[in-house]
Amino acid sequence: MSDKLNIGIIGAGRISRVHTPLLAQRVPRARVKKLCDLDLDKAHALGDPLGLPVCQDYREIIHDPEIDAVFILSSTNTHVPMALEAAKAGKHIFCEKPIDHDADEIRRVISAVEQAGVKFQVGFNRRFDRHFAQVKKSVDEGLVGEVQIIKITSRDPQAPPMSYVETSGGIFADMSIHDFDMVQFLSGAQVVEVSVLGACLINPAFAQAGDVDTCVISLRLDSGALAVIDNSRQAVYGYDQRLEVFGSKGCVTADNQRVDNTSFLNADTSTQEKPLWFFLERYADAFLYEDISFVDACLDDRPTLIGVKGGLTPILIADAAQKSCQAGGIPVRVASE
Amino acid sequence: MSDKLNIGIIGAGRISRVHTPLLAQRVPRARVKKLCDLDLDKAHALGDPLGLPVCQDYREIIHDPEIDAVFILSSTNTHVPMALEAAKAGKHIFCEKPIDHDADEIRRVISAVEQAGVKFQVGFNRRFDRHFAQVKKSVDEGLVGEVQIIKITSRDPQAPPMSYVETSGGIFADMSIHDFDMVQFLSGAQVVEVSVLGACLINPAFAQAGDVDTCVISLRLDSGALAVIDNSRQAVYGYDQRLEVFGSKGCVTADNQRVDNTSFLNADTSTQEKPLWFFLERYADAFLYEDISFVDACLDDRPTLIGVKGGLTPILIADAAQKSCQAGGIPVRVASE
Amino acid sequence: MSDKLNIGIIGAGRISRVHTPLLAQRVPRARVKKLCDLDLDKAHALGDPLGLPVCQDYREIIHDPEIDAVFILSSTNTHVPMALEAAKAGKHIFCEKPIDHDADEIRRVISAVEQAGVKFQVGFNRRFDRHFAQVKKSVDEGLVGEVQIIKITSRDPQAPPMSYVETSGGIFADMSIHDFDMVQFLSGAQVVEVSVLGACLINPAFAQAGDVDTCVISLRLDSGALAVIDNSRQAVYGYDQRLEVFGSKGCVTADNQRVDNTSFLNADTSTQEKPLWFFLERYADAFLYEDISFVDACLDDRPTLIGVKGGLTPILIADAAQKSCQAGGIPVRVASE
Amino acid sequence: MSDKLNIGIIGAGRISRVHTPLLAQRVPRARVKKLCDLDLDKAHALGDPLGLPVCQDYREIIHDPEIDAVFILSSTNTHVPMALEAAKAGKHIFCEKPIDHDADEIRRVISAVEQAGVKFQVGFNRRFDRHFAQVKKSVDEGLVGEVQIIKITSRDPQAPPMSYVETSGGIFADMSIHDFDMVQFLSGAQVVEVSVLGACLINPAFAQAGDVDTCVISLRLDSGALAVIDNSRQAVYGYDQRLEVFGSKGCVTADNQRVDNTSFLNADTSTQEKPLWFFLERYADAFLYEDISFVDACLDDRPTLIGVKGGLTPILIADAAQKSCQAGGIPVRVASE
Repeated sequence: MSDKLNIGIIGAGRISRVHTPLLAQRVPRARVKKLCDLDLDKAHALGDPLGLPVCQDYREIIHDPEIDAVFILSSTNTHVPMALEAAKAGKHIFCEKPIDHDADEIRRVISAVEQAGVKFQVGFNRRFDRHFAQVKKSVDEGLVGEVQIIKITSRDPQAPPMSYVETSGGIFADMSIHDFDMVQFLSGAQVVEVSVLGACLINPAFAQAGDVDTCVISLRLDSGALAVIDNSRQAVYGYDQRLEVFGSKGCVTADNQRVDNTSFLNADTSTQEKPLWFFLERYADAFLYEDISFVDACLDDRPTLIGVKGGLTPILIADAAQKSCQAGGIPVRVASE
Repeated sequence: MSDKLNIGIIGAGRISRVHTPLLAQRVPRARVKKLCDLDLDKAHALGDPLGLPVCQDYREIIHDPEIDAVFILSSTNTHVPMALEAAKAGKHIFCEKPIDHDADEIRRVISAVEQAGVKFQVGFNRRFDRHFAQVKKSVDEGLVGEVQIIKITSRDPQAPPMSYVETSGGIFADMSIHDFDMVQFLSGAQVVEVSVLGACLINPAFAQAGDVDTCVISLRLDSGALAVIDNSRQAVYGYDQRLEVFGSKGCVTADNQRVDNTSFLNADTSTQEKPLWFFLERYADAFLYEDISFVDACLDDRPTLIGVKGGLTPILIADAAQKSCQAGGIPVRVASE
Repeated sequence: MSDKLNIGIIGAGRISRVHTPLLAQRVPRARVKKLCDLDLDKAHALGDPLGLPVCQDYREIIHDPEIDAVFILSSTNTHVPMALEAAKAGKHIFCEKPIDHDADEIRRVISAVEQAGVKFQVGFNRRFDRHFAQVKKSVDEGLVGEVQIIKITSRDPQAPPMSYVETSGGIFADMSIHDFDMVQFLSGAQVVEVSVLGACLINPAFAQAGDVDTCVISLRLDSGALAVIDNSRQAVYGYDQRLEVFGSKGCVTADNQRVDNTSFLNADTSTQEKPLWFFLERYADAFLYEDISFVDACLDDRPTLIGVKGGLTPILIADAAQKSCQAGGIPVRVASE
Repeated sequence: MSDKLNIGIIGAGRISRVHTPLLAQRVPRARVKKLCDLDLDKAHALGDPLGLPVCQDYREIIHDPEIDAVFILSSTNTHVPMALEAAKAGKHIFCEKPIDHDADEIRRVISAVEQAGVKFQVGFNRRFDRHFAQVKKSVDEGLVGEVQIIKITSRDPQAPPMSYVETSGGIFADMSIHDFDMVQFLSGAQVVEVSVLGACLINPAFAQAGDVDTCVISLRLDSGALAVIDNSRQAVYGYDQRLEVFGSKGCVTADNQRVDNTSFLNADTSTQEKPLWFFLERYADAFLYEDISFVDACLDDRPTLIGVKGGLTPILIADAAQKSCQAGGIPVRVASE
């Protein structure tokens, strides 16, 4: 393999508008060969300013012998067939989360990737956030001792349109899935049981879609530790992303990142900046580090930080959460991989 | 009634060593007439330096015609008979929490107090903490809008001796009960359902005593809001008492109180002071405000902030929590008052 | 000497309303025997609710054989004659700052006190603030290494009435004097040179009174270290009392103390509580510790934390600052003790 | 002019390694045409990975008709001749600070630039720091009212090698110059008088070089406001860059930026991350915004944020500071432009 990783990108939508400029300009060892989208106008709109060749058919990318790795950034329902085809073609694969809403479909990808012996990385970008990565490092270094409680607050600044909600797979597969991954990442343990209280407090349309907009999730890990997550679809003050790991020797906490470090005092009030608005701002650096990490893993033949199996367990937890929520909070065991 | 409230204090143990000096010296409208304890030495040890007359028999206090109000600070199993007797004698009553571990016993006190028409205050001192009181004020002023999620972290710095644990009534009646009261206080709503994951992660002796030392508690309120509490019997860094109320218009948070506001930076590290060690430090002022509030309510004939019914519901929640925990997290409805 | 220190208090004005209740109720080893004020009504207003005997003539206090120590809390111009008389009478002396505006007058007190062999403490209350005391402790333990820069921000929330300003001795003797003491306290070194830029930015009446309302003060210490103070008579957001000590090994900082630890976030803003309003709030505990420290030093025959000489040097620095300010910032050497 | 600005870069040293990758990859409207350095190996080392043509002679850049603007990033002593030549050639100029140590030389550049009618920007990168820019915005919006005191702490994490110090022009021209610019930027006023106490507390070699390593600087502005700066060549805990603007209506503060927002608590200590290490980390974004701002000003024909005159006054203040320091703190008036 050359000193740069030749990359093809599938999809020119919202998340591609995050990854593509990074891969084209800021990931030192990446070389983007081509960008495709069924909607050729979208492909041009994103690729032209970056000087990237575009195409309409993703097969042109998967079967291009000069391409080493593909970024699957298209809609969720296309992930599995593309991943299977890419694995068969011997390409390394970066796939946005979730791989699929159906665990069995993900298991098919696992088989294909293992058989092909290619690298696979799921887009759990938060693992690359430097604040959370520092928490993980503290845990790994033993600073907190035995992990006892993991606490995550994860609230979006505004609810997505209901059209999105209806096909999102529900709050657990769409939103909490990041937190499920984070619980396992930080603890190094597996979630075995989930109990959820859910509610519709923001918009009754969520209930009509069979979904909730607010929930508190309790989890039991196979290490014996407990975890608790609270999610809301709408925190009017901005993206609320805090977590802590509490253990026998101490507690490490990651706070929100504010727009800047200024503060203001006058006769009436004392104000500070609010948290960064949403994931594009909060995880801007994390997306970059995520892409660098994948490219480096491919070129240096090292395991990716979140392999294809890492895409399965959060879905299994989400399934259990969904069942628990619908059953009014009864604890549900997570299915085995 | 005179311009000062004449007070008799029953009990000279740990919690009396907090209240008695405050009542004797720092509550402007209080006048302590007498202090009693079965162990007369203990009564002298506490009362003598404060110039307080002491006695052994609590009946001397309850039936002293010069005494307007009694502070029942003795062990939990004595609360109900003393409260019943004091109510019958027409005394106002301040009673440490919990009134009792048995809801029916508490109901007897409720009847007696209502019949006698005396004031009654339960010792939920945290309501008088100025940080939490400010959170409550923000909620009441509508700053957070509709309450959606209440989140409480409440961890003790060190586990009590197992002898204490065995008669404590369990973590929910002994420790979480403060948090149950706080959820209802902050939200102005009633808890209707509880779901608990518990674990023994600190000391297996808790399990042997039929108790847990770590838990995450999810609650559903009759307003529709959710709440989540995480408790630990041992946070090695000190008393961890943080909470937040999140709602449709914003979020208000109370952080721990540190020993002082200094911080230190050197080539190796950046340090700040740790949280105050335990409840005596953290709630020192709260105990004072609590006593002042009770004395003022009696003298000015206003309702106390936490009446006798306020002592019942947290016990009912604790009962439900206990059942849920033992059933592995199945949600349990809170019994009606 | 008995196990309690018998105290007479001279003055029932503003600062006495701070000390007298503390001495009467909260300093365990203090016993207030009598309170005097030329204005007998004021003495009654303060003393009666505390059950203290009052008198009009301070000589009754100084010559009362049962009194061990006097608190001189009357107006500055009375400090020296009273201190001289009290020293002659063999009484220990607590004297509010400044002892006098005239260095030679203070030197007379020094002689008298040394001759009489009595304890003397000047009312630099800030040394007893737990935040600043912690900074001092860090310096003494060597955490910051060699002290290189001391930085103090000290701003009052509102300017005093001009009637007060006119007899205050000027901003340096009235306000900066606390900071001069603090620089020497924290560094353990002597100020040798002062340079001041002053300005009237708040109220031109200060200029008419020959004073300034805003200043930045640079100081050189005999250890070689530098210090910088900024003062303002009016910080509209409250009492601004921050300081830091920077040295070869690190930096220790004391931040303001806020009313409480809550914070609030909504769609528009993120707010925290403001600093405590003024010295009565900010230094409430410091006054108590100050009084306890004095009483203990007398009873245990240990040196006070700030002896009578400690009242002289800040005045000498203030004199130099005044000259430098009037000379437009030319550095002025501090006169020798 | 085309839709991109064609840029030639002179110098491939330390500061060029900051700007060149930004201009080549991250400033959307910039197109780097060529990079030159007398040391051709250095030019290749920096330019080749970025795909930039390189040359040895800066004249090739200045006289390239395809180049619109030059970045003068070479050593200070080359700034003036190159700027004069570039101005004559009609190129827009970005010049690192300081333009020169000699005010008259800077005046020559001012004339040349005005005559040529080209854009000129001095590299005061801190103005583009988002924290300080927010402070400036607050001041401009009137939030602090009339500015009364500006307070800047600016300390480097480690002293430069003495070889650097000897040709640096001294601490005031090399280091404080950023703070002088910041005082004028934030206040919108001119410094008229400077008073400095300096000391050698870190390394006596500074004294041997006729320099100081620690100083406190007081400044008087033509608006009447005061400012105070404290500088140290060595803060062992990292780059200390804090400032505040205090005025009649309030106070706005910018704190250091920490490596991340995590904090850790255990039985011994409470720690947070330290400040970012040095200017490359702290001002990484500021350099980018600085370059974007210059490129936009050229393309859109708007004034740059810091024109060529903005390079003169800080040098005049530095001259006055140097004189004051050598005279032991006597205030020195700043020469007129």
